[in-house]
Amino acid sequence: MSGRLAVVGLGPGDPRYLTPEAEAALGDAEALYGYGPYLDRVPARSGQARYPSDNREEGARAAAALLHAAQGACVAVVSGGDPGVFAMAAAICEQIEQGPESWRELDVSFIPGITAMLAVAAKIGAPLGHDFCALSLSDNLKPWDLVERRLDAAASAGFVIALYNPVSRARPWQFGNAMERLRRHLPETTPAVFGRAVGRPDELVSVATLAEADATPADMATLVIVGTRETRVIVRPGRSPLVYTPRAAVEVSA
Amino acid sequence: MSGRLAVVGLGPGDPRYLTPEAEAALGDAEALYGYGPYLDRVPARSGQARYPSDNREEGARAAAALLHAAQGACVAVVSGGDPGVFAMAAAICEQIEQGPESWRELDVSFIPGITAMLAVAAKIGAPLGHDFCALSLSDNLKPWDLVERRLDAAASAGFVIALYNPVSRARPWQFGNAMERLRRHLPETTPAVFGRAVGRPDELVSVATLAEADATPADMATLVIVGTRETRVIVRPGRSPLVYTPRAAVEVSA
Repeated sequence: MSGRLAVVGLGPGDPRYLTPEAEAALGDAEALYGYGPYLDRVPARSGQARYPSDNREEGARAAAALLHAAQGACVAVVSGGDPGVFAMAAAICEQIEQGPESWRELDVSFIPGITAMLAVAAKIGAPLGHDFCALSLSDNLKPWDLVERRLDAAASAGFVIALYNPVSRARPWQFGNAMERLRRHLPETTPAVFGRAVGRPDELVSVATLAEADATPADMATLVIVGTRETRVIVRPGRSPLVYTPRAAVEVSA
Repeated sequence: MSGRLAVVGLGPGDPRYLTPEAEAALGDAEALYGYGPYLDRVPARSGQARYPSDNREEGARAAAALLHAAQGACVAVVSGGDPGVFAMAAAICEQIEQGPESWRELDVSFIPGITAMLAVAAKIGAPLGHDFCALSLSDNLKPWDLVERRLDAAASAGFVIALYNPVSRARPWQFGNAMERLRRHLPETTPAVFGRAVGRPDELVSVATLAEADATPADMATLVIVGTRETRVIVRPGRSPLVYTPRAAVEVSA
């Protein structure tokens, strides 16, 4: 079987974040699959077919790309950020496990990228400076009480918390509920970093407190980092503040 | 004040992972600071001074680089992986907060990179496929009972766990203790991925079970990813296995 499939992380959207390995994989591909807005970030190449699809069609997109590769083509599936973090890599693996035996023989590779929490953290300092977790607030694929249990566990054990997919039109109340949940464990003054579209013209990165977080605009493309009791804000004259979590930890949240 | 400081993530060590943004920052620098083996990864440029230092000298290295930048130089501090993940970014912020007021006026930037857990995950499939945490097993900067508490919280709430700094000569028993701790929450068959030196000639990525993990070789440069009850291994004829954590989660570990 001669086909190949690469699952490629584009990073946050600016070409300055695209690794040479990802660039090479995009150049090799005869066919590109992906969520439309992510595909739009990849410059057109002659002779390269494009198959955009909608969000929340990850399973069908993964199966179509695998089928195409199994027919002998060199296929790339593009992902925003890193494909292994709330993106296409797991969907591809699910389809390989459930699909025809021949898909297990395919040459499949996963090409990492700068995921949103790393890009947002870098824009503001070092908020992930010590132990941290990454949690999707979408309850499309897990029950909300599991999200709450994970918020409780992470905040009470002193992890910094990076929240992916905080808000969507179909999930209007979950983010406020999550902030209320975190305030049970953390002081209202705990820094919360909001970042979206890093490296793109509409980039916006700001700092709020946990008390103000619910009232801070956020959408599906926003990444929120909630600090710990030890996270600090450095005010700087004439410059935006830095937010960081010290490397040394002594205290566990109550 | 005309000096500049960039804290640059080199990724896992292969130039294929170095972003164009990081490449540009290294090219702009008049002086490079960093842990010796990381500096050795950066090709020499004429007219560029190099200041290598030992591991565990992060505070002194950060202060020296800030002082140099405050004198008007364009300085880069290099970090393996991502500077914000158990690396130099937090040390730089600590020194800015504690140092002379003038350091707050400096043009400081943080340039993200591919951190080890993303590189190792990509080599084996999608083990971080759902909610996950990143935890350093080093107890140099936090008490061991805090590490244990975080392991308990993460495993019992069903987070995949990426372990940085699992073993060093000065910390021989901590990794075995951590695996024993995780076995209280997770089945002995839970997949554990071991990865080191991704993208370098001595790259090694393998899968063990949680029962076998203590007996699997690991050192300071190894990154270990311990799955959840839902993490799966796909056996492939003639190819290495894939490990992934499904996007959908229903079960919380007991």
